[in-house]
Amino acid sequence: MNLVKTLRMFHSFWQLSQDPNKLERVFAIADAGENPKIFEEVAAHVGRHPRGKRALEECPRVGEIDLKALAKLPEGTLGRVFADHMIANHLDPKAIPVPEFPRGDLRYIKAHLRETHDIWHVVTGFDTDVAGEIGLQAFYLAQLPSRLSAVLIAMAFVHVATKNIGAGEPMMNEVMRGWTIGKNADLFFGFEWAKHWSTPLEDVRRMLNVDPNPTEASIGPHQTYVFRDAA
Amino acid sequence: MNLVKTLRMFHSFWQLSQDPNKLERVFAIADAGENPKIFEEVAAHVGRHPRGKRALEECPRVGEIDLKALAKLPEGTLGRVFADHMIANHLDPKAIPVPEFPRGDLRYIKAHLRETHDIWHVVTGFDTDVAGEIGLQAFYLAQLPSRLSAVLIAMAFVHVATKNIGAGEPMMNEVMRGWTIGKNADLFFGFEWAKHWSTPLEDVRRMLNVDPNPTEASIGPHQTYVFRDAA
Repeated sequence: MNLVKTLRMFHSFWQLSQDPNKLERVFAIADAGENPKIFEEVAAHVGRHPRGKRALEECPRVGEIDLKALAKLPEGTLGRVFADHMIANHLDPKAIPVPEFPRGDLRYIKAHLRETHDIWHVVTGFDTDVAGEIGLQAFYLAQLPSRLSAVLIAMAFVHVATKNIGAGEPMMNEVMRGWTIGKNADLFFGFEWAKHWSTPLEDVRRMLNVDPNPTEASIGPHQTYVFRDAA
Repeated sequence: MNLVKTLRMFHSFWQLSQDPNKLERVFAIADAGENPKIFEEVAAHVGRHPRGKRALEECPRVGEIDLKALAKLPEGTLGRVFADHMIANHLDPKAIPVPEFPRGDLRYIKAHLRETHDIWHVVTGFDTDVAGEIGLQAFYLAQLPSRLSAVLIAMAFVHVATKNIGAGEPMMNEVMRGWTIGKNADLFFGFEWAKHWSTPLEDVRRMLNVDPNPTEASIGPHQTYVFRDAA
């Protein structure tokens, strides 16, 4: 990485830690750190899973998202819950820039992960506040060798250290939840969300073995974590 | 914080992320980030606990540690396990610089935390490898508003992102364990370790409600985490 890119990355990292809501900084970090090795690493990982392997070959895309149309789907369907989530949080599906690449280009990984990010939120049940975003990054890291997720988790702890020590507790709880859901769940990468807008969210979660409030998780070779209501 | 201090901190942070075994960088970061507010914050937190309150008044110190003498204590005692741990890991109790302050100076907190760090390792059961150190930092963060711990956890995730993505999994597992043990345990701050060298480690753990392999933890308002053997 050259010096300008490195300095730009440090600058964006620091700026984001001081105001984690600056979404454009996330892309600045991602773009500055992008290199072919990262995509090869993710491809090698997801390629070991039938869904990931197929996705790398067929490159399915979510395509244009029509929130108004999705909002008319029956209650409880993936599309309807997604549309409700986006509208309630004033989120625009186009807020995350999705680059286009020729088929066969490994940067498909980047396009796929970006255009499915908001869907992952809905399926995993993570909020869009800072703790929720970082919990979702822990989910990514549990599922993929996502270096960007590690950077964003790092950024969040710099935020805790330098701006808001009180943010540490909710963040750590969401990180634990994200890591656990991610380790329990089947691979999200390559799932054809666009084919399931009309599928009940509960069924989608069942297909992917997602429990947003996990009651149990095997983590590491020696232990299983069980979550249960404190009440 | 002035510019020179800031740049020095960034530099040390980056250097440490590239080689997390550079212990001296930890102190460089700590020294660069030190300010009275941080100690006031920790004092306010630990002061709500009788042990912490008393420690802030009486400022107990571990004092000179004679590993050879501790190694002669009966097996299983805190002192003996501590000495065995230090010797097996080629650790020198003097490797962590412990500054001296007049009684009543809140920087006592720094002296106390530094001189007890290796003891915390033994009592919590964290290894001295990078994953173990970061797990112990999660323990600190669970117990104290420790901004330095948040910085070190951030540094570790920068390490994962830029140097060793494979280190993410063991680190995350140790972070989860550290956070859980820390939330379960009674306050470590102010515990008079030097009075307990001859106490069996198991008894010390019982006094402080420490289970190095936690089977259950209440985390957050809604959930309890239960850990159990995966086998």
